[in-house]
Amino acid sequence: MTYVLKAPTREKLMRVGTANIANVLLKHGFKNAMMHGIFPINSAQAQLVGPAYTLRFIPAREDLDNMTNYSRDDNMHRRAIEECPEGAVLVIDAFGNTKASSMGDMMAARLKYRGVSGVVTDGGYRDSPAIHAIGLPCFQKHNAPPATPIALHPISLNEPVGCGGVAIYPGDIIVGDGDGVVVIPQALIDQVADEALDAFEYEEFAALQIQQGRSIFGLFPATENSRKEYSIWKCAQKKEG
Amino acid sequence: MTYVLKAPTREKLMRVGTANIANVLLKHGFKNAMMHGIFPINSAQAQLVGPAYTLRFIPAREDLDNMTNYSRDDNMHRRAIEECPEGAVLVIDAFGNTKASSMGDMMAARLKYRGVSGVVTDGGYRDSPAIHAIGLPCFQKHNAPPATPIALHPISLNEPVGCGGVAIYPGDIIVGDGDGVVVIPQALIDQVADEALDAFEYEEFAALQIQQGRSIFGLFPATENSRKEYSIWKCAQKKEG
Amino acid sequence: MTYVLKAPTREKLMRVGTANIANVLLKHGFKNAMMHGIFPINSAQAQLVGPAYTLRFIPAREDLDNMTNYSRDDNMHRRAIEECPEGAVLVIDAFGNTKASSMGDMMAARLKYRGVSGVVTDGGYRDSPAIHAIGLPCFQKHNAPPATPIALHPISLNEPVGCGGVAIYPGDIIVGDGDGVVVIPQALIDQVADEALDAFEYEEFAALQIQQGRSIFGLFPATENSRKEYSIWKCAQKKEG
Amino acid sequence: MTYVLKAPTREKLMRVGTANIANVLLKHGFKNAMMHGIFPINSAQAQLVGPAYTLRFIPAREDLDNMTNYSRDDNMHRRAIEECPEGAVLVIDAFGNTKASSMGDMMAARLKYRGVSGVVTDGGYRDSPAIHAIGLPCFQKHNAPPATPIALHPISLNEPVGCGGVAIYPGDIIVGDGDGVVVIPQALIDQVADEALDAFEYEEFAALQIQQGRSIFGLFPATENSRKEYSIWKCAQKKEG
Amino acid sequence: MTYVLKAPTREKLMRVGTANIANVLLKHGFKNAMMHGIFPINSAQAQLVGPAYTLRFIPAREDLDNMTNYSRDDNMHRRAIEECPEGAVLVIDAFGNTKASSMGDMMAARLKYRGVSGVVTDGGYRDSPAIHAIGLPCFQKHNAPPATPIALHPISLNEPVGCGGVAIYPGDIIVGDGDGVVVIPQALIDQVADEALDAFEYEEFAALQIQQGRSIFGLFPATENSRKEYSIWKCAQKKEG
Amino acid sequence: MTYVLKAPTREKLMRVGTANIANVLLKHGFKNAMMHGIFPINSAQAQLVGPAYTLRFIPAREDLDNMTNYSRDDNMHRRAIEECPEGAVLVIDAFGNTKASSMGDMMAARLKYRGVSGVVTDGGYRDSPAIHAIGLPCFQKHNAPPATPIALHPISLNEPVGCGGVAIYPGDIIVGDGDGVVVIPQALIDQVADEALDAFEYEEFAALQIQQGRSIFGLFPATENSRKEYSIWKCAQKKEG
Repeated sequence: MTYVLKAPTREKLMRVGTANIANVLLKHGFKNAMMHGIFPINSAQAQLVGPAYTLRFIPAREDLDNMTNYSRDDNMHRRAIEECPEGAVLVIDAFGNTKASSMGDMMAARLKYRGVSGVVTDGGYRDSPAIHAIGLPCFQKHNAPPATPIALHPISLNEPVGCGGVAIYPGDIIVGDGDGVVVIPQALIDQVADEALDAFEYEEFAALQIQQGRSIFGLFPATENSRKEYSIWKCAQKKEG
Repeated sequence: MTYVLKAPTREKLMRVGTANIANVLLKHGFKNAMMHGIFPINSAQAQLVGPAYTLRFIPAREDLDNMTNYSRDDNMHRRAIEECPEGAVLVIDAFGNTKASSMGDMMAARLKYRGVSGVVTDGGYRDSPAIHAIGLPCFQKHNAPPATPIALHPISLNEPVGCGGVAIYPGDIIVGDGDGVVVIPQALIDQVADEALDAFEYEEFAALQIQQGRSIFGLFPATENSRKEYSIWKCAQKKEG
Repeated sequence: MTYVLKAPTREKLMRVGTANIANVLLKHGFKNAMMHGIFPINSAQAQLVGPAYTLRFIPAREDLDNMTNYSRDDNMHRRAIEECPEGAVLVIDAFGNTKASSMGDMMAARLKYRGVSGVVTDGGYRDSPAIHAIGLPCFQKHNAPPATPIALHPISLNEPVGCGGVAIYPGDIIVGDGDGVVVIPQALIDQVADEALDAFEYEEFAALQIQQGRSIFGLFPATENSRKEYSIWKCAQKKEG
Repeated sequence: MTYVLKAPTREKLMRVGTANIANVLLKHGFKNAMMHGIFPINSAQAQLVGPAYTLRFIPAREDLDNMTNYSRDDNMHRRAIEECPEGAVLVIDAFGNTKASSMGDMMAARLKYRGVSGVVTDGGYRDSPAIHAIGLPCFQKHNAPPATPIALHPISLNEPVGCGGVAIYPGDIIVGDGDGVVVIPQALIDQVADEALDAFEYEEFAALQIQQGRSIFGLFPATENSRKEYSIWKCAQKKEG
Repeated sequence: MTYVLKAPTREKLMRVGTANIANVLLKHGFKNAMMHGIFPINSAQAQLVGPAYTLRFIPAREDLDNMTNYSRDDNMHRRAIEECPEGAVLVIDAFGNTKASSMGDMMAARLKYRGVSGVVTDGGYRDSPAIHAIGLPCFQKHNAPPATPIALHPISLNEPVGCGGVAIYPGDIIVGDGDGVVVIPQALIDQVADEALDAFEYEEFAALQIQQGRSIFGLFPATENSRKEYSIWKCAQKKEG
Repeated sequence: MTYVLKAPTREKLMRVGTANIANVLLKHGFKNAMMHGIFPINSAQAQLVGPAYTLRFIPAREDLDNMTNYSRDDNMHRRAIEECPEGAVLVIDAFGNTKASSMGDMMAARLKYRGVSGVVTDGGYRDSPAIHAIGLPCFQKHNAPPATPIALHPISLNEPVGCGGVAIYPGDIIVGDGDGVVVIPQALIDQVADEALDAFEYEEFAALQIQQGRSIFGLFPATENSRKEYSIWKCAQKKEG
């Protein structure tokens, strides 16, 4: 598994919406690509794009999960913070559990320093306001401040997991924005980025048309004719540019 | 069914809170008038007031619900966007389903252009940040970015529906604010608007009293005496005005 | 039961995070100290600290719960608003019910005037935007605008209750911030405040270290050595100050 | 508060269905009389009828709730088992919590011996198969075998509580059958029993009519004419008897 | 829309399991054919097979929904009981609401007499034990004894609805068994019945093989070779028969 | 990790209740040992005892999960059926998903033939009535008949998983009865079996005492004195035997 996300592809994915990507994935037969009920901790945060590096939690057990064991250097939760590659997105499978924290502000600060792109969990975080202040794009179900060992045991790094009802394989591309989080299978990344950008730019064209009073019929979703109009508009734009 | 909402009535309803209206409706015997778990996509959005025009979804079926059928001009979801009357509120019965989008930013832009007042769904939207930017007051359960045909099939326009656990009959008046969404039966609109405005203004009076240190006993809820004080205060205000 | 919360203890608790407190309580054997799914009505609101004064609701019954009975001066909901001690936090056990309001803006205004610190409910409020404007820190599950008697009957004042899945005994200290709400057993208040402040200041030290590129290993959670470094850093700070 | 339930009234309530009683209560203005989501542990168990004696739980706290404290003779959970009056129904407000047991088979055996009519909780039981074998009619949300102190703390006896979303005041009459559990306000017991029995017997008449091919129109719900027919049928029956 | 369900097709569907049918529908591209969370009121009840006749509920409203209006002969709930065709299945869209009854034993008795095949709701019933005694196969979420007008308003007959998360178009074939309820699009009925029976009989063959110690590999799911073995076995059986 | 479960230990665990075991585990500090919301498919089924062999599912993905891939011999779901050791319990982590089947009757028949003790899932099964007829003790959330690949992808065998909110490490002992399912950490098996049997037999003694009219005070929970009485009773029994 490689973590190479080409710069141009990343730039495209930074511009488009998760909903555009979900539509493109639907055309490729993927109906279940957006996590359900997972949202940004702060709607003002930056767009998140990067390859998935995963951490899997299972329920805690009283004899294994206490602050002493938690503090050990081989604790996989803490290892994930130090080992998640630069540019990657840490995806945490907390099996939807919000009774304990998937991450806090100290860990977020370290990830930020290490150049990790952001974090997604189907559980929740502690210190959410501080995490937002750090500037790391993070997505969760809702805040979950109690200490991790109260309910969560880190069991494995970077294996396929589920998060928010979607399968994530290491290296899949995660994109998050104000709408939520979408997962792009690794093999389709560049193609999806191109098609999503095209869909995004078509919507820029369509938005202008709608502002001028045009009906959505024949315009949205796109038709063969409206695609032609869009091509002309796009060429004109480029000339201007 | 008429869509006439008198301008003065509309002005009154633009001033009062949904909670004031709910209280007035309770006096008329309506206990179940506020949608449950339906909130604005952005707490900063404007107040929503208008008569209900409804769209009903049922679960999607794979042979009927695909992007090809979805693009047809007789698709009721898209027809709703073009046919919802100016000034009306599009109320979408998505049977609480947030696995697919009840509406996106292109449709919101068109509704805005057409002078539709806003949208309410017990499902969710895609492109919520863009919808907020467009300035159309919209209410939902939570974001639901996946493409509509993945889970939702539009089956009928402007028939009685349920939304957020409340019955909506076409022409009922929908009012939405930072608290949520309330439904006013059509026959009671003007009366409810008057009573709600009176309750709202009484609360302005009561708020002043409370700021001056008065107890809520004998003041809130209103008593015969406090109503008299309020009338005097109101007259005084008008003279000032 | 006493409501004395020493000023220095209060100052400490105003500085620290609820997550810091939850960690300290865990060290004392308390795993279930943070309310689940209870959040501030507005993330910008001030920190909440104060001893708990409780109100318990049970389900409403049609013959007992109507606006007439509700308006009586012996109504315990309204009595709670007038009797909750200055500086205390009104904790409302609404058994998780969001079908009716645990409180509205008139009551919030009165509590604010009376010097009550804030309100916590596992139900919801009406007039949430107005409550935020009043400046009273309030926490809830989500908005619940319908009139209280529709679903809630106030049955007792200041007895032990549950709220958000946590036991609250009158006089326990409630602390709320952007993360949520934590409950400190009365007997441990001063000790927990000291330990939480120490943990909070250690995290200030750790945050600086992380910003300088230090790994969380050996730093977070704290080790004996990192504690020593922290002590030195802290002394140095004091000299500077 | 008295626990007198007249023998004839009890006999009537032993014959009728909870749904008949709920209908009668609706005529008296009570819409929320049946517990929601509370069912018998075994559909074959006997009908439950008796006045409510209540036990209220709040969430457990680690320093107060352990097996040592639990074993104390002043533990209210155990006191409830010894103090619930003969013929009464023990109604347990577990605030819907099924993470720990509201009762087990030892307690059920003791209640059975003491002549208690049965138990209702909005939590769950341990040893449900054994409880059924003991022959005590018991209703719950679903099994909850873990030890009580893990999640539940008994806080008070025989005060008004909520259970399954319904208010229960000590002395209210509880009736449970295969459909669920209904609560009859104490002041209405005899009247409701009479009306419910009448409704029940009318349904016996209606069932015969339906078996003979009669439409439900003009028969169910009852009309003035069908009531007359029923009276004649009933008189005829009595003569036969 | 026709209600003709050929006798041989019906016989086939009476033999096969809903899970067999769901598998066949999956081969035809239908992934969402089984209702979610809808089960028989009694696991001992007979298999249900018949074309769908639908009733749609919306939330009740206090001024429209009372026992007086409910008793009117044009009440659609009662009309459904008299108008649902013989042999059909009454499918009730209660939008998942279990706060009031989708049907009771009087209505079930009438449907039984009229030769209706059974009833499916995503709400619940009252008098479930009596309904089972009547012998009408009925499926629901869970018991819901309160009177219908408390929460449900019947709004339309035999239009497309959703039930248990699945789309039902009038005339679709409903099959229910101990596993749950599946919906067969009308156009595919005979083909699905044939394929499901074949799958069912293959499983009879496979079960015998497994009892003799054969691995599921190469046997289940069926392979080309195992299909051949099955054909030979089937021929042999017929000769025997 | 060994799968040896000593015959005497197994016999003890076959006699005791899951609630007895949960109590013993609580004494050892384990509060979260019983799965939440997981029950037998049929209350009449035999007790389940055996070491855990685990299968983990993640959400399905359209390009990987189809009947073709599902039929491959390296499919881990099918491998689990052939590789789960004799006497073991197959524990399936379906992350609580009931939209597709964790197992069906063909697989159950094969497991039965292979001498596997039973199956536990936090999802659900298809063909539940047939599975019960096969006589394999199986526990689930509720029926889930749709084909596995619709929602579930088998990703790993016999690694630590979560099921019903409890951690399961391969080799832990699973015990299931009419109450639910409990998990015993491998290191404690023999000790827990002894203590649970003792607790079980003490309850037999206590039950007799209760039948003779003894109060639960001083008897249940056991006291030093009641333990002595029990010892005498037990010796007397042995002499008789």
